[in-house]
Amino acid sequence: MARIVQKYGGTSVGDVERIKKVAERIKAVRDEGNELVVVVSARAGVTNELIARAQAVCKQPSDRELDMLLAVGEQETIALTAMALHGVGVDAISYTGAQAGIFTDKIHTKAKIMTIDARPIVKDLEAGRVVIVAGFQGINEDGQITTLGRGGSDLTAIALAAAVKADKCEIYTDVDGVYTADPRVVKDAKKLQEISYDEMLELASSGSKVMQSRSVEFASKYNVVFEVRSSFNHNPGTIVKQEVAYMEKVVVRGVAVDKDQAKIVVSNILDKPGSAAKVFRALADANIIVDMIVQNVGRNGVANLTFTVPQTDSVRAQKALEPVVLEIGGGHVAVQDQIAKLSVVGVGMKTHSGVAATLFQALANVGINIDLISTSEIKITVAIEKARADEAARAVHTAFELDKLG
Amino acid sequence: MARIVQKYGGTSVGDVERIKKVAERIKAVRDEGNELVVVVSARAGVTNELIARAQAVCKQPSDRELDMLLAVGEQETIALTAMALHGVGVDAISYTGAQAGIFTDKIHTKAKIMTIDARPIVKDLEAGRVVIVAGFQGINEDGQITTLGRGGSDLTAIALAAAVKADKCEIYTDVDGVYTADPRVVKDAKKLQEISYDEMLELASSGSKVMQSRSVEFASKYNVVFEVRSSFNHNPGTIVKQEVAYMEKVVVRGVAVDKDQAKIVVSNILDKPGSAAKVFRALADANIIVDMIVQNVGRNGVANLTFTVPQTDSVRAQKALEPVVLEIGGGHVAVQDQIAKLSVVGVGMKTHSGVAATLFQALANVGINIDLISTSEIKITVAIEKARADEAARAVHTAFELDKLG
Repeated sequence: MARIVQKYGGTSVGDVERIKKVAERIKAVRDEGNELVVVVSARAGVTNELIARAQAVCKQPSDRELDMLLAVGEQETIALTAMALHGVGVDAISYTGAQAGIFTDKIHTKAKIMTIDARPIVKDLEAGRVVIVAGFQGINEDGQITTLGRGGSDLTAIALAAAVKADKCEIYTDVDGVYTADPRVVKDAKKLQEISYDEMLELASSGSKVMQSRSVEFASKYNVVFEVRSSFNHNPGTIVKQEVAYMEKVVVRGVAVDKDQAKIVVSNILDKPGSAAKVFRALADANIIVDMIVQNVGRNGVANLTFTVPQTDSVRAQKALEPVVLEIGGGHVAVQDQIAKLSVVGVGMKTHSGVAATLFQALANVGINIDLISTSEIKITVAIEKARADEAARAVHTAFELDKLG
Repeated sequence: MARIVQKYGGTSVGDVERIKKVAERIKAVRDEGNELVVVVSARAGVTNELIARAQAVCKQPSDRELDMLLAVGEQETIALTAMALHGVGVDAISYTGAQAGIFTDKIHTKAKIMTIDARPIVKDLEAGRVVIVAGFQGINEDGQITTLGRGGSDLTAIALAAAVKADKCEIYTDVDGVYTADPRVVKDAKKLQEISYDEMLELASSGSKVMQSRSVEFASKYNVVFEVRSSFNHNPGTIVKQEVAYMEKVVVRGVAVDKDQAKIVVSNILDKPGSAAKVFRALADANIIVDMIVQNVGRNGVANLTFTVPQTDSVRAQKALEPVVLEIGGGHVAVQDQIAKLSVVGVGMKTHSGVAATLFQALANVGINIDLISTSEIKITVAIEKARADEAARAVHTAFELDKLG
């Protein structure tokens, strides 16, 4: 007997038929004698419908009322999932985020989980009930309903797994697990049996869309081992866990491509103390996240600052920078949208040399130019021409022999 | 400045356009300097959609999970209504039933309101906010979400009006007010300016569908004066209040017809003590509500029992009675679906004689036979042929000169 937390995403509970299939899966695990806490998202599409209605009545809905509205989506799913379980003879009970004791801070629409009082859930588990919990939502100390932002249901599942001391945490989604590369781009991409939190985090921040970073961070902090797997088949997924020594044998565990980036070049600014700070302060004030910063200083005392920003922020970034450039003297701001970031990630880099050389050689072999380079302890990222990003991913995947993994 | 509770039903908040119109109405009242608590129902159709999904996943959904599911409908509307108010520059805040401090008993799907802790609402009113409360829902002492059953949002509004000591309570619906008869049947039916609780109750129990009895009972118990009016125009509605002396000047205030009734005749049973009790015990055990009971005893020691039941219960009633009739000896159960109940209601009956005579003469004049008769202090009801019920209503309406009221 094990205590298991499962999380089913919006496509897995997208309609009544799928909810009934999920109930069958839960029943099978329950019938093996396991205790189950099941976190569900809103049915796919419901959240967007609600947001559309909100925008139809008010151009800029308040965050507090948005949370009140959006929490409705998961509350529907928990009730339907509990009913579907009753329909197949499984004792089950639904919990809103508030009932599940998920206390958050007061930041509506992107609240942080502060504490979880899991006693009522544990009591129901011990009474033999499957507990169905609304993902994505909590309650703050004023009794207000809050939501956790994008990827919030994963976070609910991982936080609950820590709170109820679960033996297993399974994140069911519409993909089979974590792959060495996007299988739609790299045909011989392999599903990873396991991956470390740090690698998963670097992949998440590099354009792999399996999970949001903060759920992985939370899992890492509380050492919650979890498995990413599909609700549409019974294949084993990918286990995400603390790094262990043997993981370092593999130098690179994955290749990620992020095409939603733009490069910004602030050129010809006077190279004096504080210039760069002013540039990045202006971007920070506009809430724009900056990556891959490179500064070149020429002989004549002028400098170029180059960096990447999310493509959706590029116009705002340019606008935010123009007054700054005027202030610090003489510069020019240029935006280049046709770039992509390609990253290789692996804890093995910490102990293996030559990773950068292999990466650069692989790109050179297919004639792809490298625009920017940035590195972390377990990741190397290059900015390249967007049109050739998929080709680059395939070349790099082969160069690191990722098709032979798994 | 007054403190006003308003309630908008499902058709009044049926879509985003209607919600925006409701927000405009609220703003107008707010701009006159009034304090406002607004109770809203789920958008028309939403509750039925949710029930359909529930039945698709489970044949007999549990009451606890049904409440969890159905509460979603109102939670959506409160958030959208608050947002629509923000959109027109009105400070507003939404409250679920639980947040509004509406504590109920534990009877899911038809919970009774036990107490209301209105302090948070009053605080927000005093801070200048319009408070939007989810109708139809509450919370029990275990922290479980409950719903109040049919007409629950009216009940929420009336109970809140008592709790916040409102000066006015306005029930907005899709009809203009309470009429002397159904205007679709009786063309010269008149809207009543006011009506007593008791008359409203008798009308509700006689087939008039304006409001559920228990909301009126609650209003009567706590002496909450309320007005029934339309959200689609600005006409004054009907004030429902404690009976006052001048109301008795009008003998009959309304004619109601209920076509959803069946007559059951239990014939030829032995007339001995306890026979009737056994018949009605069997019906009570089957949760069937019985009305208009008549017993005839013949010379030969056998009796006939006749009564009406809601038409939807007639088959169940027959089945429940067959073993009883066998047990008490010799009888026969017959169901007659083609009947209607016609009632005349008015507090003036208490002081005026001749009401029954006028009623019977009016029906005789058009050749309509009376099948059963029952009376209360302020109501006379007759069972007649269903096919001629509308014609009967028109004849009785004229006989009591109701077209000259108002």
